[in-house]
Amino acid sequence: MTTGHGEVPTPAFMPVASQGTVKALIPEELKEIGVTIILGNTYHLYLRPGINVIEKLGGLHRFMAWDGPILTDSGGYQVFSLARLCRLTDDGVTFRSHIDGSEHHLTPELVIDLQQKLGADIIMTLDECPAVDAGMVKIREAVDRTSRWAERCRRHYLGSDQLLFGIVQGGTLSQLRQQSAKAITSLDFHGYAIGGLSLGEAKDLTWSMVDETIPFLPSDKPRYLMGVGSPEDIVEGVDKGIDLFDSALPTRVARNGALFTMKGRVNIRKAVYKTKKVPVDAGCDCYTCRTFSAAYLHHLFKCEELLAYRLATIHNLRFISRLIHHMHTTIRQDNFAEFKNEFLSQYQVTDEQVRLAQKRKWLSTPIYGDNISKKVR
Amino acid sequence: MTTGHGEVPTPAFMPVASQGTVKALIPEELKEIGVTIILGNTYHLYLRPGINVIEKLGGLHRFMAWDGPILTDSGGYQVFSLARLCRLTDDGVTFRSHIDGSEHHLTPELVIDLQQKLGADIIMTLDECPAVDAGMVKIREAVDRTSRWAERCRRHYLGSDQLLFGIVQGGTLSQLRQQSAKAITSLDFHGYAIGGLSLGEAKDLTWSMVDETIPFLPSDKPRYLMGVGSPEDIVEGVDKGIDLFDSALPTRVARNGALFTMKGRVNIRKAVYKTKKVPVDAGCDCYTCRTFSAAYLHHLFKCEELLAYRLATIHNLRFISRLIHHMHTTIRQDNFAEFKNEFLSQYQVTDEQVRLAQKRKWLSTPIYGDNISKKVR
Repeated sequence: MTTGHGEVPTPAFMPVASQGTVKALIPEELKEIGVTIILGNTYHLYLRPGINVIEKLGGLHRFMAWDGPILTDSGGYQVFSLARLCRLTDDGVTFRSHIDGSEHHLTPELVIDLQQKLGADIIMTLDECPAVDAGMVKIREAVDRTSRWAERCRRHYLGSDQLLFGIVQGGTLSQLRQQSAKAITSLDFHGYAIGGLSLGEAKDLTWSMVDETIPFLPSDKPRYLMGVGSPEDIVEGVDKGIDLFDSALPTRVARNGALFTMKGRVNIRKAVYKTKKVPVDAGCDCYTCRTFSAAYLHHLFKCEELLAYRLATIHNLRFISRLIHHMHTTIRQDNFAEFKNEFLSQYQVTDEQVRLAQKRKWLSTPIYGDNISKKVR
Repeated sequence: MTTGHGEVPTPAFMPVASQGTVKALIPEELKEIGVTIILGNTYHLYLRPGINVIEKLGGLHRFMAWDGPILTDSGGYQVFSLARLCRLTDDGVTFRSHIDGSEHHLTPELVIDLQQKLGADIIMTLDECPAVDAGMVKIREAVDRTSRWAERCRRHYLGSDQLLFGIVQGGTLSQLRQQSAKAITSLDFHGYAIGGLSLGEAKDLTWSMVDETIPFLPSDKPRYLMGVGSPEDIVEGVDKGIDLFDSALPTRVARNGALFTMKGRVNIRKAVYKTKKVPVDAGCDCYTCRTFSAAYLHHLFKCEELLAYRLATIHNLRFISRLIHHMHTTIRQDNFAEFKNEFLSQYQVTDEQVRLAQKRKWLSTPIYGDNISKKVR
């Protein structure tokens, strides 16, 4: 995928830099980890420090000193999941800030302007993202409005070297997924996102909706599965033909002491690590594993030292980066299927019930269940 | 000053790595900042993860991946300031952990053993550190007991390539300071620390006590002023002949958004920084100032992003490191006096009343008024 700030080999995973920073890391660390593109949240940056502030400071790349590709979301998802009392009309959405309660109004045209001011390399259309358990009627409304808004974004889009992606909605209803995919792809965007999933629904439902949607997405344009995710889901998504992923999960669970290994997530707080001389993940080449014992990481988490969150984040992002790299290689060598089977046979997936409980807890808390930020706040 | 892990040009400032980490930073950053020696807290490491754990893992240097010199304190100061109900006898001190209330007993001999297990390059004798407002009788007792404990530490000390420093007490009473200095120096340690100061007393009282003590300290051994400090105090101390300083102040105030500049501390949270394109300190060569605008730092603090505390810590430690470097140069060039006058004429010192209020608040809170850690905890 070619962007204004360089090539992005696909499949690719985008770490989340909600507020202009991948929590606890500097750009040089992201580069060393092998991160090729990051995601910024228009909603968060709009509220703090303000889009005009970032524009005056030279744009988002300069603001956060990241010279690689950036994708910004439209803010739609955050408005529906995060903001207080949002009033929806065909014109746009009016909401109150989750920070100070101030009232704001976003339209499809405005979110395009905001993302152009940020200078992101890939920008997203404004979509209506209903709750996963919303009824048929509500979801059909959302699909129709998302199409009308996509059209207005497309019309308002100035071209430039920013890529514009459309978003498919449709909840967990096959027919509406197909309808939305047809409507959005008819508008000829640079890429297509599958939105409104990974919102607490069962895994098999997520994947069946992806299966329903993908056939309608052109194979010569990037396909972006929003809000995914975990190592096993990224592998599954790539198998289904997804090119782009984003999720706060790898960095969020890292800050909670859950570290990825080829055998699955481990909880570094467990007593077994108190005296473990070896790194958390023997096979890992990240700075954390190269430099420190599991016992040191365990100690930092027990003491709630700021360094704990940084070192764990580096490890989890490097794990995802290596996973992505393996997929590039095996796809080129035409043995991705073997890789997938081997990976999934080793990787102990988090129990479905536990996963859903965590996910819902996370979705129900303002700043995405980020316990550290919450405690720090 | 020559240690088991290399030379330390004096004067030197030791950042505090209480729990085996200079909060938020990695060893490579400390090196880049120009840190030449750090301080570890025996009390904290004794409680978590435990001295034997660190010994099994190869010692404190290996545990935290810092290959430069380390000085460990005896734990005395923390026991008196931090632990719950400490019972003092001539044998030693019994206290309850501030973390879990568990009971522990430290003796002068044990404190030496603990620091030898940690493998620190410079270790300290166990001293009794009374409150600054303790009465004459209490302070005399402390001076006498500190002398007896110093003698036991000296006797128990095995030599090796660890340096052993003695500590002078005496509160704010000239006569007792002199008495303590004579007693401690008679025991022939590798260096001498001035303890029991910078505990909330008025500045002029601190300095008059330093003046009373220094004449009794041999000029051919390092002189260490414990718990100091601020840029202006370090300069003042060097002028009086101090070689070694330690304090959590530069890193602690950094995490609270107070950044050092040649004109004094600035509060990065202030609205004036919201759109400031230039770095916090134009003259600074630290990673933070080289890479980010003051506006970005302001934003990170407003959002309480983890990166804020890391970037501010890097800046303040680099400020101190450059200050130390300037003093090395001007001492060699024999124009330190001019440097001191020039520095103090520019540097706006924090108001004495504000300083004392902050200091007392800080001393009265368990983990040294570290709001971040407190919130994170």
